[in-house]
Amino acid sequence: MADQETITNLSELGEFALIDKLVKNVKIYNDSTLKAVGDDAAVIDHKDEQTLVSVDILCEGVHFDMTYCPLKHLGYKAAVVNFSDIYAMNGTPTQIVVGLGISSKYSVEAIEEIYRGIRLACDRYHVDLVGGDTTASKSGLFISITVIGKAKKEDIVYRDGAKPNDLLCVSGNLGAAYTGLLILEREKAAFMADPNMQPEFAGYDYILERQLKPEARRDIVEKLKEIKVKPTSMIDISDGLASEVLHLCKESKVGCMVYEDRIPMNQKTIQTAKDFNIVPSIAALNGGEDYELLFTVAQNDYEKVKDLDDVRIIGYMTADEGQANLITPDNHQIPIEAQGFKHF
Amino acid sequence: MADQETITNLSELGEFALIDKLVKNVKIYNDSTLKAVGDDAAVIDHKDEQTLVSVDILCEGVHFDMTYCPLKHLGYKAAVVNFSDIYAMNGTPTQIVVGLGISSKYSVEAIEEIYRGIRLACDRYHVDLVGGDTTASKSGLFISITVIGKAKKEDIVYRDGAKPNDLLCVSGNLGAAYTGLLILEREKAAFMADPNMQPEFAGYDYILERQLKPEARRDIVEKLKEIKVKPTSMIDISDGLASEVLHLCKESKVGCMVYEDRIPMNQKTIQTAKDFNIVPSIAALNGGEDYELLFTVAQNDYEKVKDLDDVRIIGYMTADEGQANLITPDNHQIPIEAQGFKHF
Repeated sequence: MADQETITNLSELGEFALIDKLVKNVKIYNDSTLKAVGDDAAVIDHKDEQTLVSVDILCEGVHFDMTYCPLKHLGYKAAVVNFSDIYAMNGTPTQIVVGLGISSKYSVEAIEEIYRGIRLACDRYHVDLVGGDTTASKSGLFISITVIGKAKKEDIVYRDGAKPNDLLCVSGNLGAAYTGLLILEREKAAFMADPNMQPEFAGYDYILERQLKPEARRDIVEKLKEIKVKPTSMIDISDGLASEVLHLCKESKVGCMVYEDRIPMNQKTIQTAKDFNIVPSIAALNGGEDYELLFTVAQNDYEKVKDLDDVRIIGYMTADEGQANLITPDNHQIPIEAQGFKHF
Repeated sequence: MADQETITNLSELGEFALIDKLVKNVKIYNDSTLKAVGDDAAVIDHKDEQTLVSVDILCEGVHFDMTYCPLKHLGYKAAVVNFSDIYAMNGTPTQIVVGLGISSKYSVEAIEEIYRGIRLACDRYHVDLVGGDTTASKSGLFISITVIGKAKKEDIVYRDGAKPNDLLCVSGNLGAAYTGLLILEREKAAFMADPNMQPEFAGYDYILERQLKPEARRDIVEKLKEIKVKPTSMIDISDGLASEVLHLCKESKVGCMVYEDRIPMNQKTIQTAKDFNIVPSIAALNGGEDYELLFTVAQNDYEKVKDLDDVRIIGYMTADEGQANLITPDNHQIPIEAQGFKHF
């Protein structure tokens, strides 16, 4: 949280002094960043590479809850989920612009704390913060981040390239962020009922961190390049495995088979889901915000990916357009169905 | 406003159907747009030109009031104010990504109406809508637009290039958007007091349109190119003339003299300001949202710009760093002071 000793009202400081404060420690990592903050627009030189651009919004009370989400983590997450979109194109994020809407109840220090998180993410992933707009909102806080990335034309991986018989792969493990959220919400409810109660977070570090401070899988994209595997299609898992599998099937005009017992899950995720009477694979299929990568590779690449660290083959693509099925351990086929708009 | 006959709840339609609906009529104007909506990121190919990027946010209850702001105009304005940032760099806007946060009280038709306005702006300015994120907000509506533009390296005009003795020029006329807002707020107050009262907007069309549906000055940027004048510095007027003059002075490390009686104002703006007991030049200096261009040119270009249609020379730059002065008609010097953060 913000430093509790100094609380400055937004109106005291003034807009231009605030902007100076927010951007003064910004480092520049990319040669392509010719002009960062401080003019009507940033200037980016991508020469013969192609520019990728994506936007993601996080809203208070919808995507995060100020009761348990530290502002610095919030800034970090807002940046990282955008980087994830660029990695999911097999590209490299290079610049971000930040839109911040914030009600006057927040202090200057609160905004600085959010920016501290954004800058930390930029430092870790070597992305340049090149512009922004900070404004008042009538109520609540929202962050809108647009990320710019680059990639060679021949390296870009779209969602529409999966072919029948391609192998379906996923990085890391799924459902962790969602079960982390279940713990946060349980402890919030307990705290609401009895403000003297201490929250019980011990032992849940892993899934809490997956929810509050996710990472983007740059390492997976780099590894695949090292072993010379270019996925035929790729997407990041923000809405849950089910949703993303359906996106790949729809865009690539194929179907797929996903083996339920191949879906990678952490032991703590499985245990927590069970504690909440949720079938663990449902947490992976419908719980969002894992930011792992889901991708397909040609059968020819099987030998290269089968033992790849932190990558699991969970199924294969079929010629049955739009038919995405889950194969249960007892060999039943269940159609995979879309979620979406859970926030509305 | 949205078609009143069909009202669809957001939750009925579902996220993916909504996205399909919003982007189905999107036309692509730029060769550089290789991939628009529909993947993790858009793909843009700017070859040997440089990429410009800027973001602007509009929030309900802060930047617009749903009582009098038609949704289509709102979408149009949100797009155009971003294009304006790219023109202010002497560039050409080419792509936008749209972030929309919207409370569940809004219908699908309302969102479509906003997008209709955004698309209209894109059609007029030949900008491609290449991505977006639409999400629920706890309350109210906000729009965050990031614009990507292009320019040849040698064409880009920054804020920091003004030199002493350069001429200070402004396009169009100032204060109109602000006086338009005064009228809207007066009629809203009257309506609140007596809902049976009809608002009196007759005769105010020009200033109301300047407030509700501003245009970006692409024409000025094109004209300057035609007559081979490259401004030494440029900025668009979003916060009022005073603020923008100070930006140019600060970034260029110069001072300036602005002649009050040279500030271009429309007759309706002057009359309306007077009706509200506001000195007209104050409306120009401190009233925002005109989206005219403020720029400096070298003395050598005087002959070229002096008769340029819809451009007025209002003063000149000096070597007195940071000293921006207004010269009144009776030859008094008044320091120009910053506004900013009026929203907080």
